[in-house]
Amino acid sequence: MLTKTGSTIFFENPPVVRGYASVVGKKEANGPLKEHFDVICMDSFLGQTSFEKAEAQLQNTAVSRALQKAGITADEVGYVMGGDLLNQCISSSYGLRDFGIPFLGLYGACSTMSESMGLASVLCACGAAENCAAVSSSHFCSAERQFRFPLNYGGQRTPTAQWTVTGSGSVVIGREGSAQMPRIRAVTFGKIEDLGVTDINNMGAAMAPAAASTLAAFFKDSGSKPSDYDLILTGDLGKLGSDLLIRLLMDNNINIRERHNDCGKMIYDIEKQDTHCGGSGCGCSASVLCSKILRDISAGKLREVLFMATGALMSTVSVQQGESIPAVAHLVHISSGMEV
Amino acid sequence: MLTKTGSTIFFENPPVVRGYASVVGKKEANGPLKEHFDVICMDSFLGQTSFEKAEAQLQNTAVSRALQKAGITADEVGYVMGGDLLNQCISSSYGLRDFGIPFLGLYGACSTMSESMGLASVLCACGAAENCAAVSSSHFCSAERQFRFPLNYGGQRTPTAQWTVTGSGSVVIGREGSAQMPRIRAVTFGKIEDLGVTDINNMGAAMAPAAASTLAAFFKDSGSKPSDYDLILTGDLGKLGSDLLIRLLMDNNINIRERHNDCGKMIYDIEKQDTHCGGSGCGCSASVLCSKILRDISAGKLREVLFMATGALMSTVSVQQGESIPAVAHLVHISSGMEV
Repeated sequence: MLTKTGSTIFFENPPVVRGYASVVGKKEANGPLKEHFDVICMDSFLGQTSFEKAEAQLQNTAVSRALQKAGITADEVGYVMGGDLLNQCISSSYGLRDFGIPFLGLYGACSTMSESMGLASVLCACGAAENCAAVSSSHFCSAERQFRFPLNYGGQRTPTAQWTVTGSGSVVIGREGSAQMPRIRAVTFGKIEDLGVTDINNMGAAMAPAAASTLAAFFKDSGSKPSDYDLILTGDLGKLGSDLLIRLLMDNNINIRERHNDCGKMIYDIEKQDTHCGGSGCGCSASVLCSKILRDISAGKLREVLFMATGALMSTVSVQQGESIPAVAHLVHISSGMEV
Repeated sequence: MLTKTGSTIFFENPPVVRGYASVVGKKEANGPLKEHFDVICMDSFLGQTSFEKAEAQLQNTAVSRALQKAGITADEVGYVMGGDLLNQCISSSYGLRDFGIPFLGLYGACSTMSESMGLASVLCACGAAENCAAVSSSHFCSAERQFRFPLNYGGQRTPTAQWTVTGSGSVVIGREGSAQMPRIRAVTFGKIEDLGVTDINNMGAAMAPAAASTLAAFFKDSGSKPSDYDLILTGDLGKLGSDLLIRLLMDNNINIRERHNDCGKMIYDIEKQDTHCGGSGCGCSASVLCSKILRDISAGKLREVLFMATGALMSTVSVQQGESIPAVAHLVHISSGMEV
């Protein structure tokens, strides 16, 4: 049912993407992907009394909508797995508590979407579940308050900074489905990489080495090359981190330039929307994957896609204590089920 | 290789506990389990410059020692999975970054030890890894600083409060091993339960409903009863939470009183060491399981054990915003490999 080569798991009967949904805020809806999102929330509070409760609501909405699109109920889901950036991952615990689905809490920072999809795929493939839901989120206002400054402070951003996406994405993965559904062919869970970057405003640089490590491992394990894929999509390296990833891989004679894009570069019109290096946050890769990308895969416009979300594993405390920023990247290989 | 009944996964070829290790601080070493711990750290800083770095060191030491006792190297471990209570789980990311093992970050609060053991067992059983390491930790000083008051403040504790354990435990789970090794027979991942408890100083009460829910599900799925087990061990419900769990299950006609114990009640001499309702924290269940309990299972003194760590999924922010405390409990069934 599954085999392992190096650090990559290959599925003999690949689990399918039965449903997916994305929920975003106003700024994201003003970006280039507007038409692809399922739900757009013009109110940053989503009718809640705090930004943290609003973020929990994002996850709740994303999972509800993904289940609806998959045509299944919560009772039919074996496990829901997810996480977020807030201290103690409260968006997930409060956002998911009402579903009554066994819950596996994850923390992979902004790599959580591919970590959860990878684990969901393994649990479905090995028969531990017929269906699993994977979810992740972030919210600009809750992230600013927790990691940076209160919004009212009006802090200046450095040119290397990224903009935390208000959004969530959820994927329902099933052991079986129709032949036309996208399929998860392989998963590579990454190692923690830390090349000593300490600049909290340059997360792309901190995460690029982890992305390079996981991608190189996948190409080696699978015996494939970048041109075998229509799209190699990283989570939220942004402009600077994307350039670094391409250069790091070039040093290993792997050229992804023609096939690479980054969710952080796609979600905003970076110049017009003044987001410096682009989008970031767990919700960035989650909402981009669960909108345009999975639509294009479902339609057969994209046939072979590597989705790799990247996470920076520091906290405000570790940075204040002078620590560098470790990072991790997890990869899932998604194929279209549509005939050419 | 595995079957699923209800929400419980049963292993046809049960994965084994190849090694385990516990690391604790001075107060824990002064408790009744002193002789069973592998490493005792008399210095709360473990030679580091902060309590947070000390906690990361606890995890590093626990995994290193568990690998050593298992007789394997980090290269032979497919995945390391773990988490902790600190914001963004920095004990895990910093404590585990040097091993070079693919990393799956988890957040289950104090349920993390059984969550990680459960996932490690599934990954081994389905062939995704030959070996996996599971780990969790907490540190009294880093937890007090983050969740309550700076130590120097000298805050009073309420009678229902518990004492965060300074400790870590790690288990190395293998797909195969000798017949004498303890075996993981089944795993039940729990649902989020929230009965509306809002008292942050009474975590036992908040977690008891989740423990009752998971345990009832396991008994139903397995068709077994409490008297089939030598020990039903909860994570850190403490005195009050343990009493509540027993009463909640009694309402369902399940009587665990004669078989139940709680890591939070075992780790300290509650009266003499003035720990009110007992120990708590991710490191509580981790260090108790990875010392006396797994020793007794390995020696055949305990033959059938249900280990169920429980986690309270709130944060300081969610509590300040008036939210109740959701909780989750995950269960692993461990059997001795020794002949009677």
